[in-house]
Amino acid sequence: MVAVGSKCRTCKAPAIIDLPRHNAHFCAEHFLELCRRQVVKAIEKFDMLRADDKVLVAVSGGKDSLAVWDLLVELGYQADGLYIGLGIGEYSATSAEYARAFAQERGLKLIEVKLREEYGYDVPTAARATKRVPCSACGISKRHLFDSEALKGGYTVLVTGHNLDDEAAVLFGNTLRWDVEYLARQLPVLPARDGFPKKVKPLVRLTERETAAWCIVRGIDYLVDECPMAVGNKHLAYKAALNEIEQESPGAKANFYLGFLDNMAPLLAGRSAAAVDGLRSCSVCGAPTTGEVCTFCRLVEKSAAHDPVPVEVLLRKGRIR
Amino acid sequence: MVAVGSKCRTCKAPAIIDLPRHNAHFCAEHFLELCRRQVVKAIEKFDMLRADDKVLVAVSGGKDSLAVWDLLVELGYQADGLYIGLGIGEYSATSAEYARAFAQERGLKLIEVKLREEYGYDVPTAARATKRVPCSACGISKRHLFDSEALKGGYTVLVTGHNLDDEAAVLFGNTLRWDVEYLARQLPVLPARDGFPKKVKPLVRLTERETAAWCIVRGIDYLVDECPMAVGNKHLAYKAALNEIEQESPGAKANFYLGFLDNMAPLLAGRSAAAVDGLRSCSVCGAPTTGEVCTFCRLVEKSAAHDPVPVEVLLRKGRIR
Repeated sequence: MVAVGSKCRTCKAPAIIDLPRHNAHFCAEHFLELCRRQVVKAIEKFDMLRADDKVLVAVSGGKDSLAVWDLLVELGYQADGLYIGLGIGEYSATSAEYARAFAQERGLKLIEVKLREEYGYDVPTAARATKRVPCSACGISKRHLFDSEALKGGYTVLVTGHNLDDEAAVLFGNTLRWDVEYLARQLPVLPARDGFPKKVKPLVRLTERETAAWCIVRGIDYLVDECPMAVGNKHLAYKAALNEIEQESPGAKANFYLGFLDNMAPLLAGRSAAAVDGLRSCSVCGAPTTGEVCTFCRLVEKSAAHDPVPVEVLLRKGRIR
Repeated sequence: MVAVGSKCRTCKAPAIIDLPRHNAHFCAEHFLELCRRQVVKAIEKFDMLRADDKVLVAVSGGKDSLAVWDLLVELGYQADGLYIGLGIGEYSATSAEYARAFAQERGLKLIEVKLREEYGYDVPTAARATKRVPCSACGISKRHLFDSEALKGGYTVLVTGHNLDDEAAVLFGNTLRWDVEYLARQLPVLPARDGFPKKVKPLVRLTERETAAWCIVRGIDYLVDECPMAVGNKHLAYKAALNEIEQESPGAKANFYLGFLDNMAPLLAGRSAAAVDGLRSCSVCGAPTTGEVCTFCRLVEKSAAHDPVPVEVLLRKGRIR
């Protein structure tokens, strides 16, 4: 990670990490300080959080969500966790253990929602039932439950652990298609609207290498594996393409994402509002929707009626992608 | 290039090329037809050329510029060629031969301008004299001479051979930086303005693989080598990144560039005009410029005063990049 003999930019102690984008090395202490500073900068610039917010952090058991929960608690925010049991076999079982262990060790509150127990389906079964990629059913489920659990628990803000690599890759995908509607919505803060909580992404100024290093330095155990169902999806291809660019030109990835927020997002303001006008309440669950029944309730109806499909079957059959 | 036994989409004859982006194979005849159709489509959609235009084609001796010249003559346009002798050693000597041979065999008029003979410098020397990358001096020289030769010869349009890969790579670079001013200017047609001729890029709907195949099928000899001074520049890295995306998702590159023209360019219209207002005439050559002396004349002054630097010296010293 760092050449022997490298010194921390701040204190000249032996460095533990090099950050080519900042053209500098850091010791453990000053690396953590840099991470905190980047998170505070994101929170302040985009008006993400106030001191009296009641925060719900969406937690997967991976590095990003545990890092953001850790950072927010350390910064003094009152933040509980929300874990969604997606039923993706061993992957979900292990990820839940990491999330629980993190919460228990720190005396934090973790809300758990299990798709199979509470809604009668899981992501692999939903993928088979809807004949779509698993990431589609997974996204619909998480978005809905993040919203409904935040509102149910009286939380004022929902936090996700999306990092700079995530946001840059999504931006790259939307840019390759010049999907103006999606581009206009790609902001690190979505304000609260009728039936939707405020949603924020405090890690947008940190790369995934940095959030991993945060966890390692802070002694946080996290699930390293990527979701087995995501392997080969386009999001990962976009990340790889941007990483090659970053390799050649350190800082290019941050300039791409943060430059978008500074230079382009203001020009697109208002172009994402179209879909919001015709919202009404889902006749099943009451969530805001453009149709009679919301996407989540339609997914539940279809998937819960289907025989359970273990993730191994889906992976073995090569039905994914 | 194509699997044995593949058939032309149009006539079912044995195919000579597969075009994954069109999800089809073509025989020689119908491949040429497809290329002509794409060029006509670009010309018509962007109002590039009229039947009575007097066209000057910027010719490098490479596949793109010879293909576009060939295509325009074949489509019935009155088109002469312009070759700039950049003085990049053997590379320039060979490229000139290809350009001359093409013109001679077809009885076409080729105007030649040699930087060393007419302006007392060449690109390698200019790179050394200005202490900048050679691509910078090369671009300044070509842009200026394209404009001035077009106006001098009474041409109504200047054509360049930029293909889809070129334009997509430049767009990618401008997008990585969200350079709104440059993005707003990235159109396949720049209208004539005081002192600038109209400039058009009829090949924007053809990839470089397609322009190479055009030349091969049409029996056009062209210089295959990339310019030795461009090796390792960012433009080539952007092309490589887009090619990987294209490999995964055929058509992604065309969607990226053509989708930009359809969806984003209209939103940026007018944002590139800022720099045009304060133009006056260069006190040396009379070309439009924002300063007292234009960039080209400043380059000439600096470079012509410098001892000639052979390209081999520049390449050997690893001073490039």
